[in-house]
Amino acid sequence: MPDRGHSEPGHRGPPLSVSSTDPLADWRLAEEPFYQPVGEEIAGFEAARAARLPVLLKGPTGCGKTRFVEHMAWRLKLPLVTVACHEDLSAGDLAGRWLLDGEGTRWMDGPLALAARHGALCYLDELMEARADTTVLLHPLADTRRALPLERHGELLHAHPDFQLVVSYNPGYQGLHRELKPSTRQRFVALGFDYPEPEVEAAIVAREGGVDAELAMRLVRLAVRTRRLREEGLDEGASTRMLVHAALLHRAGLPVRAAARQSIADPLSDDPQLAPSLRALVDASF
Amino acid sequence: MPDRGHSEPGHRGPPLSVSSTDPLADWRLAEEPFYQPVGEEIAGFEAARAARLPVLLKGPTGCGKTRFVEHMAWRLKLPLVTVACHEDLSAGDLAGRWLLDGEGTRWMDGPLALAARHGALCYLDELMEARADTTVLLHPLADTRRALPLERHGELLHAHPDFQLVVSYNPGYQGLHRELKPSTRQRFVALGFDYPEPEVEAAIVAREGGVDAELAMRLVRLAVRTRRLREEGLDEGASTRMLVHAALLHRAGLPVRAAARQSIADPLSDDPQLAPSLRALVDASF
Amino acid sequence: MPDRGHSEPGHRGPPLSVSSTDPLADWRLAEEPFYQPVGEEIAGFEAARAARLPVLLKGPTGCGKTRFVEHMAWRLKLPLVTVACHEDLSAGDLAGRWLLDGEGTRWMDGPLALAARHGALCYLDELMEARADTTVLLHPLADTRRALPLERHGELLHAHPDFQLVVSYNPGYQGLHRELKPSTRQRFVALGFDYPEPEVEAAIVAREGGVDAELAMRLVRLAVRTRRLREEGLDEGASTRMLVHAALLHRAGLPVRAAARQSIADPLSDDPQLAPSLRALVDASF
Amino acid sequence: MPDRGHSEPGHRGPPLSVSSTDPLADWRLAEEPFYQPVGEEIAGFEAARAARLPVLLKGPTGCGKTRFVEHMAWRLKLPLVTVACHEDLSAGDLAGRWLLDGEGTRWMDGPLALAARHGALCYLDELMEARADTTVLLHPLADTRRALPLERHGELLHAHPDFQLVVSYNPGYQGLHRELKPSTRQRFVALGFDYPEPEVEAAIVAREGGVDAELAMRLVRLAVRTRRLREEGLDEGASTRMLVHAALLHRAGLPVRAAARQSIADPLSDDPQLAPSLRALVDASF
Amino acid sequence: MPDRGHSEPGHRGPPLSVSSTDPLADWRLAEEPFYQPVGEEIAGFEAARAARLPVLLKGPTGCGKTRFVEHMAWRLKLPLVTVACHEDLSAGDLAGRWLLDGEGTRWMDGPLALAARHGALCYLDELMEARADTTVLLHPLADTRRALPLERHGELLHAHPDFQLVVSYNPGYQGLHRELKPSTRQRFVALGFDYPEPEVEAAIVAREGGVDAELAMRLVRLAVRTRRLREEGLDEGASTRMLVHAALLHRAGLPVRAAARQSIADPLSDDPQLAPSLRALVDASF
Amino acid sequence: MPDRGHSEPGHRGPPLSVSSTDPLADWRLAEEPFYQPVGEEIAGFEAARAARLPVLLKGPTGCGKTRFVEHMAWRLKLPLVTVACHEDLSAGDLAGRWLLDGEGTRWMDGPLALAARHGALCYLDELMEARADTTVLLHPLADTRRALPLERHGELLHAHPDFQLVVSYNPGYQGLHRELKPSTRQRFVALGFDYPEPEVEAAIVAREGGVDAELAMRLVRLAVRTRRLREEGLDEGASTRMLVHAALLHRAGLPVRAAARQSIADPLSDDPQLAPSLRALVDASF
Repeated sequence: MPDRGHSEPGHRGPPLSVSSTDPLADWRLAEEPFYQPVGEEIAGFEAARAARLPVLLKGPTGCGKTRFVEHMAWRLKLPLVTVACHEDLSAGDLAGRWLLDGEGTRWMDGPLALAARHGALCYLDELMEARADTTVLLHPLADTRRALPLERHGELLHAHPDFQLVVSYNPGYQGLHRELKPSTRQRFVALGFDYPEPEVEAAIVAREGGVDAELAMRLVRLAVRTRRLREEGLDEGASTRMLVHAALLHRAGLPVRAAARQSIADPLSDDPQLAPSLRALVDASF
Repeated sequence: MPDRGHSEPGHRGPPLSVSSTDPLADWRLAEEPFYQPVGEEIAGFEAARAARLPVLLKGPTGCGKTRFVEHMAWRLKLPLVTVACHEDLSAGDLAGRWLLDGEGTRWMDGPLALAARHGALCYLDELMEARADTTVLLHPLADTRRALPLERHGELLHAHPDFQLVVSYNPGYQGLHRELKPSTRQRFVALGFDYPEPEVEAAIVAREGGVDAELAMRLVRLAVRTRRLREEGLDEGASTRMLVHAALLHRAGLPVRAAARQSIADPLSDDPQLAPSLRALVDASF
Repeated sequence: MPDRGHSEPGHRGPPLSVSSTDPLADWRLAEEPFYQPVGEEIAGFEAARAARLPVLLKGPTGCGKTRFVEHMAWRLKLPLVTVACHEDLSAGDLAGRWLLDGEGTRWMDGPLALAARHGALCYLDELMEARADTTVLLHPLADTRRALPLERHGELLHAHPDFQLVVSYNPGYQGLHRELKPSTRQRFVALGFDYPEPEVEAAIVAREGGVDAELAMRLVRLAVRTRRLREEGLDEGASTRMLVHAALLHRAGLPVRAAARQSIADPLSDDPQLAPSLRALVDASF
Repeated sequence: MPDRGHSEPGHRGPPLSVSSTDPLADWRLAEEPFYQPVGEEIAGFEAARAARLPVLLKGPTGCGKTRFVEHMAWRLKLPLVTVACHEDLSAGDLAGRWLLDGEGTRWMDGPLALAARHGALCYLDELMEARADTTVLLHPLADTRRALPLERHGELLHAHPDFQLVVSYNPGYQGLHRELKPSTRQRFVALGFDYPEPEVEAAIVAREGGVDAELAMRLVRLAVRTRRLREEGLDEGASTRMLVHAALLHRAGLPVRAAARQSIADPLSDDPQLAPSLRALVDASF
Repeated sequence: MPDRGHSEPGHRGPPLSVSSTDPLADWRLAEEPFYQPVGEEIAGFEAARAARLPVLLKGPTGCGKTRFVEHMAWRLKLPLVTVACHEDLSAGDLAGRWLLDGEGTRWMDGPLALAARHGALCYLDELMEARADTTVLLHPLADTRRALPLERHGELLHAHPDFQLVVSYNPGYQGLHRELKPSTRQRFVALGFDYPEPEVEAAIVAREGGVDAELAMRLVRLAVRTRRLREEGLDEGASTRMLVHAALLHRAGLPVRAAARQSIADPLSDDPQLAPSLRALVDASF
Repeated sequence: MPDRGHSEPGHRGPPLSVSSTDPLADWRLAEEPFYQPVGEEIAGFEAARAARLPVLLKGPTGCGKTRFVEHMAWRLKLPLVTVACHEDLSAGDLAGRWLLDGEGTRWMDGPLALAARHGALCYLDELMEARADTTVLLHPLADTRRALPLERHGELLHAHPDFQLVVSYNPGYQGLHRELKPSTRQRFVALGFDYPEPEVEAAIVAREGGVDAELAMRLVRLAVRTRRLREEGLDEGASTRMLVHAALLHRAGLPVRAAARQSIADPLSDDPQLAPSLRALVDASF
């Protein structure tokens, strides 16, 4: 778990004015994020990057989509502006808004406008959760126009040449049973993600969780079993992230079984049928 | 993919006051957009233009409606104010609003009022997604009154003689199962769009994607096959835009098959039945 | 299509203060609107006017209700304040609101209060689309009290003797399946509108569209055929307005058949059954 | 139709400060409203007035509830503050709100607080249409506490001894199928209203509409017939108000039959079955 | 009906600043409220008071819950801050809000914060009508933490030792079919209320309504009969309050039967079956 | 019931500026909260703490989750910022907002940002009640990024190393039938809570309620019986908190049976079947 630094107590973030030295300073990565490639995703992303085409990442939770985007931002030496989408995120939150101070109203770019204006990767996580106005706002940025109409600012913002749009969602889970419209989908190229092969996944768990290869592999085998429970109604099986959690709890002193219960079985489900099955899987594994 | 220029980093858009030099400067096209006519649409538009009748463009996503409007704006030497409609776009977003600054409240025209006051083409993309208040706001602008009541500004804005209204929607897809009311429909003349004939489409793909004619035609044939999948539940087949994406990815170094998966098969669907069919179509094509 | 003048580029509407010279200047008609009477509607309106009773106009879209109100305003030498109703129009939009400027908050009359205070015709188009709060706001203005309570202004506004209320709706189409409440209905007297007789309608089309009488009559016969399609599911047949559009497109150089497709068949429907029927009707007519 | 005076053009209502000379000046009646008693309603109201009990008026639209309240206000020499209830009327609209001006925020009483503070009749018309927060706001004013908590003003307003609350609704029509809660109902005493006896109603029509007794009685007989159509689906039959409208139109020059169509048959219904029946009733009557 | 005094005309409530002399002055009772105990409710309340446990009052409308709280406030010499709950009451209305004036924003405690800060009884009437955010806001005040987080003020308000929370609802009527969550219920101790025994109730009616014991008892017997109509669909039978109303109308000069119709039968129901039954009960009683 | 101190009357909370001495002063615990461990929950929490993993507490209401978090905050010498979640809590309430004062707008951290910036435990109680935007806001704080994007402040807040996130919910009760999304669940490690063993629970009741061991055990036995009523439809049985309430009422002078009715039977249910059963259980116990 890389140390990413933190704000000094008392630090209150960048001043309002975005025209100061580096408006994207908060969003530059301080060190290289560990990422283990699982296929041709890096080549695919780089081809899309060359043509400045927007990219859609599809895959289950906790399989590394966010880490992959961080990795690509590091490789491309680009700042990374991340937005977690949800149903109450308005187009105004993304585009920007007017603030009032003693000298009148002042415009503050939202994260999407900030990234487009100054040339960052803009990553919208869980796009399927966003409202219609948020996704439609992306359309003119995501085709050859590469422009963001800021109606409320009276500006048509032409994107910086370094700007690129990346979005993700989990096709296996649909909170509000939404769908992306064809006119949105067809503006993106897509990269599919899935859980890595067992050997690759165990290497990740060993490295990120600080445990030996054998325990890592036993955790991966447990995860594979939980993923089969989807057929019995479990929303999703254990992700790689959960395995890392189990390893970290064990390193912090918990017995493996208690660590796996606490990080895998108990968070996964409250269902009266599934919860005991998950506990039994843990007990059979350790 | 024409270069449309971009904002300088640090540039913060036009100042608030719209009465300065050219309030429509952002919305003037810098160079001629490539457009390949597919029927009598240019003559149809010019007749409507002569009578200043509002125009409705109907057709599937990615078949060139937006590019056509850009082309007409270029031919007519008019600025083009584009608005992407969605369910959270309010009448106030289109008409304008009061801003507060140190000297009091100041009125800022919305994009529709801006276009009507100064004489631009105003293009409302995906009108079917807009709310009732947005479409009703268009009524007095779209008949012989050619006026926009700005209740909040206490003004009845009479449109500039150069102003013209253009709207579009995709009749094959209805996000919220809305319909346009007869009183809206009957104010417009309509131009229908569809995918171009294969030879025309291949020429567009070759030109925009920078690939040779033979590969362009193979991509078009793949697109035609995906369009037949609508009968099996696919929302929409591959658009011309997607074919251009595939060509661009290939030019950036990906093998054709990987490029076509990434730009056509994978974005089109997450359906457990349809997604493998799309991949199989790609694999059979290259 | 009468020229109604337009705002000078750069003109920004009347200043906020409504107490200046003529607060209704924007709403005075500059020239006489053409109107062809189709029955006793002028006598009916004048009797209601004599008693200052509010008037309800009922009829299909595009048959001339708005033009009739403009004509009556011209005859009566009254300014005409028009509001297009929709579900997001609030009582505050009609009644007025507080604006904030450097010297504090200032009240700005909405269009209804403006018309009531200074003595205009106030025309609410498509009243059925308005929300409950909008229609209830009309009640004390629409009975013998002739008063508008402006709760937010702390004022009971007594209407000017010249003020009169006119509303319209289309009983054949109900967007949101609303109904007017009896307590609203019973405050109005009603005038019914319908498409004019063929000879009258052809005369209108010839005059407004600038074509000869024979072509005008052929367009009217086409319209009559489309109106019969209501029994097969068409929301509404072609209005007189659409026929004028066809005539104008033809005058601008399109062949009659293309003009009629573009202005009549294509805007009327996207239905897979009805759209071809409409095109066939056009082709059989010209 | 009594002349109630009107605002001078340019008059802008009372200034914001309610502490000036007479904060209820707008709400004092200038002359005696005509009211024809139909039962013991005046004695019933006066007994409730003596005990300061809140009064609920029940009855169909247009039968004189509002006029009765005006009459009682005149008899009791009290100002009358009227509020038309609707679903968008908030508790804040009734209670009051903070306004901002150059010297800070200033509180402005809403109509209910104004009436409670200075001692007026407060009449809430169509209470059933109001939201829950509006009706609950009345509870402490409508029991022995006679107080209005103005949470946003930080004040518990104790009502003036002259203050009394009157509300009305139409039990035969329920727009949103709401009901008054028992805890609201049980705070009021109720007076029921209905259409007057034919002789009484004809006298009202003759007086208010300025026609002779015989025509007035024929209009009343027509109204009685329309009221029987409720069994066939008509929301409500013709009210006394509609008969006055017919008389006024006739006095303004329309033939009786045309006047009755315009003021009675056509406003009452758009139903394809009921509308012709209503016209036939008119034609059979004159 | 005790005289509770009233505001002087022109008085505008306490100034904004709550730190002045006595921020709870408006909420102190001026004289002892009459309350007739019907069981062990006073002892139950005093035990809860000793342990500062929050109290839940359950019972039908008009049976004396509010009067009981007033009585306990008088006994305990505590100010009583009352809030009528409804679905539009926000957590911000209860907790407080920022006000803007010439010197900037200023915090004004809402009624709940005011009571908690300065040590009053806080009585939330009809809690079941409140929204989730209102009830959840009570949780930390209603357990051993006795604290109110004022997120918007950046403060964790620790309650004054004199503060106590009282809420009420009517379990027999559920406007919006809501339920209190177990996590809310389990924080309160409960006291049940019902209509008093006939002799007790008659004594209350005689005292509060100013009539003799025999008439009071006849009114109580009528009430008992109406309460049996709940089985036939009546929401609630006549409350003690309604009987007091009947007595007051009679004292003001109405015959008993008219007084009972106006205060009991007519307010209780508009139902076409129940309303005549209620009138018949009245007529059979007097 | 520990005395937690209280605000002085007239004290108005910390000043707005959070950069003053100790922005978390309100949230530091003044004395050690009593907590009786019931399993391995302390070791589990400490392992999660060592790895700074976010913790999810699951269990019924009133079984000690909140007290456990207070206890851990005391052990870890950390301030504890608690937020009660509900459906109207917006992301802006948690993250912070702009306030306006005489010198312009000023940012005020919400409780989540405050805890993240300065290094506190942040406890979100009843997370299942929160809206989507609230839970999604937690995602980047709850994985290795440990960052909170404050879009409206233009800041990416990196969490202080001492910051840790704790959330709770009751899996047995789902107010709005919501579920936590897998992408939320999988970011947390979970600790399950339940009612303690009878002996442990009796010890807690004796200590917190100030009664002897025998009465405490009789109260626990009564609670166990009520918990079995869940099978007959009771939402939840009596919690430990309710038993403490009964003990406190008894100590304040009520007979045990009255105390148990008032604190256990009557608050638990209004159901016509269950309420008498609960009373009967009480009467059979004492």
